[in-house]
Amino acid sequence: MFYQIEKERICMTIYNFSAGPAVLPKPVLEIAQSEMLDYKGSGMSVMELSHRSSLFEAIIQDAESLLRELMAIPDNYKVLFLQGGASLQFSMVPLNLAQGKKALYVNTGSWSKKAISAAKALENIEVEVIASSEEQNFTSIPELPETVDQKAAYVHITTNNTIEGTAYAKIPSYGDVPVVADMSSNILANDYKVEDFGVIYAGAQKNIGPAGLTVAIVREDLLNQEAVFAPMLDYALQAKNNSLYNTPPTYAIYIAKLVFEWVKEQGGVAGITAKDREKAQLLYDAIEKSNLFKSPVEKASRSLTNIPFVTGDEALDKAFNQAALVEGFENLTGHRSVGGMRASLYNAFPLEGVEALIAFMEKFEQENGGN
Amino acid sequence: MFYQIEKERICMTIYNFSAGPAVLPKPVLEIAQSEMLDYKGSGMSVMELSHRSSLFEAIIQDAESLLRELMAIPDNYKVLFLQGGASLQFSMVPLNLAQGKKALYVNTGSWSKKAISAAKALENIEVEVIASSEEQNFTSIPELPETVDQKAAYVHITTNNTIEGTAYAKIPSYGDVPVVADMSSNILANDYKVEDFGVIYAGAQKNIGPAGLTVAIVREDLLNQEAVFAPMLDYALQAKNNSLYNTPPTYAIYIAKLVFEWVKEQGGVAGITAKDREKAQLLYDAIEKSNLFKSPVEKASRSLTNIPFVTGDEALDKAFNQAALVEGFENLTGHRSVGGMRASLYNAFPLEGVEALIAFMEKFEQENGGN
Repeated sequence: MFYQIEKERICMTIYNFSAGPAVLPKPVLEIAQSEMLDYKGSGMSVMELSHRSSLFEAIIQDAESLLRELMAIPDNYKVLFLQGGASLQFSMVPLNLAQGKKALYVNTGSWSKKAISAAKALENIEVEVIASSEEQNFTSIPELPETVDQKAAYVHITTNNTIEGTAYAKIPSYGDVPVVADMSSNILANDYKVEDFGVIYAGAQKNIGPAGLTVAIVREDLLNQEAVFAPMLDYALQAKNNSLYNTPPTYAIYIAKLVFEWVKEQGGVAGITAKDREKAQLLYDAIEKSNLFKSPVEKASRSLTNIPFVTGDEALDKAFNQAALVEGFENLTGHRSVGGMRASLYNAFPLEGVEALIAFMEKFEQENGGN
Repeated sequence: MFYQIEKERICMTIYNFSAGPAVLPKPVLEIAQSEMLDYKGSGMSVMELSHRSSLFEAIIQDAESLLRELMAIPDNYKVLFLQGGASLQFSMVPLNLAQGKKALYVNTGSWSKKAISAAKALENIEVEVIASSEEQNFTSIPELPETVDQKAAYVHITTNNTIEGTAYAKIPSYGDVPVVADMSSNILANDYKVEDFGVIYAGAQKNIGPAGLTVAIVREDLLNQEAVFAPMLDYALQAKNNSLYNTPPTYAIYIAKLVFEWVKEQGGVAGITAKDREKAQLLYDAIEKSNLFKSPVEKASRSLTNIPFVTGDEALDKAFNQAALVEGFENLTGHRSVGGMRASLYNAFPLEGVEALIAFMEKFEQENGGN
């Protein structure tokens, strides 16, 4: 089976539209490849370095300072390199910030729902959904209340909804109540300001690096005063130990550092976001122009990074996805809960891939009754 | 600074005695290097594969079946690929197995103490230490009681004590009370039988692969019936989802699969353990023969994988460690809590490295008043 794929694919360019784990910058993979057996003349792979070694300490410190620079993270925020993905943050955020308090959530899709459900599973925390676009099938970011209960621990939002293809154009502000954001699918691909958030967290496997690393950015005054019952889930303890309370995912942190260096070379977040806008605009324009394909998402809520589109005919969607795969467009099939197609255009996804997809969409439309 | 190191070290063989993250088999790193930009003709790195793709599904399934074969894991055990290290298991084990019950612990060193302290931090669980070698400075595995309270949820042991250099020669048996083991530092390097345990867990970064992956082997009847309050900490939920409840650490699982294939090529666990015994015996013999170096550990409790030794003179230990580093012996310094030296001889550590260390120890002894 593999051999057949290999044979057919020799010399074919592959474009990987995966929603995550996702495409990584080729120069990053090339550096990782060249250093695999010998990191900086140490005679060791980064995977073999003790997490207490000076070589690894330099890696994790560089990763942190690069991320601080890229996101302009103020000094009163801690940067934590953790494990367990956004899914573990769904429990850690309320455990650290909302014991005995009320926690407010905005429901914008599948991942918001998981965050809400994880918070509701905890005793001693009252969960309230203050806005939802569920009745609109999550095709937009809902209108948010102007004000919220000032005794609440936080307002939780999902800045970009990977499955539904929506994103916040503007971050709400609620006085003393901090905004906590799952930014997994548009971190380093937006013009938000860190100071508008109390906590930002993101699984790495979209715009940062390999799966198995989670970044959390926590405003210092929100660090828990009392210990959380499980040391690994305790923000304050992790912060006190500079993410080295136990052995962190060292290789994933190394790849993240390389990705941060690459983003910096692309002109930082401003530079890369300009490219993201160009890629997204090209595809949205092609969809708008098309008589076959359409976006299910309201214009004002459209994501730059995850772009779903449909023909409105399931059989035709399936035919498109099958034909696309043959042409080397990988992972274009929409999430099973939405159907159709989805192009995830993270930072490392090349412009040529978008152009190739659009050309393929036009060809498919001509051959399949578009007019 | 780096360049100086590089220049001095050109053509020098490096032996990495790190206690973890630790040396990996060179053939594994070579395969990872060759496949870094293109896994099996897919045009993608393993890091870029969706965890729902057929290519990654084959990787995780192969990893599981190889581990089942290597450890002869019976069918009534689940194999879970998790995150958070042994440190997160210290909380997960009692949360999943001991709610409203008594949990029994054997205290054999630093990591046992962390496990005990994490269990004690939980409400609703009564923790009892049934044996300890703390008064002997953890230089042996203590004598264990013949029987335990049959209402207890489990007896927790640390099969190999990475810092203190002790290991269980024999696994105790307590009727209906299962033995739960932190096997982080001697998994795949022992002749234990999985059926003698209720739960086995291990951080990957010693004998399995890169940091950031944790393997848990759980007997099915011990899977929690009631949900644990945080989905990511719930064994039953992880088992139901075949470790794909959320995005697992895909690249670490891929490296683990390559390591498992390598162990199989070495004659499986029996083959690799024979080599481990040979390496350890060589070093223990050299220590016994020496008039300068001695082992702080009782003979019957000595570990195959972590071998501390001391001169009894802190200044001389320091001089040895400094001289060793210059010769390319990396990470030989003992843990700060024990001092002296420690050679971690995990599966991938080569016999030649042990021979080179012994030759260096003999030379150092001649030059430093051994007689």
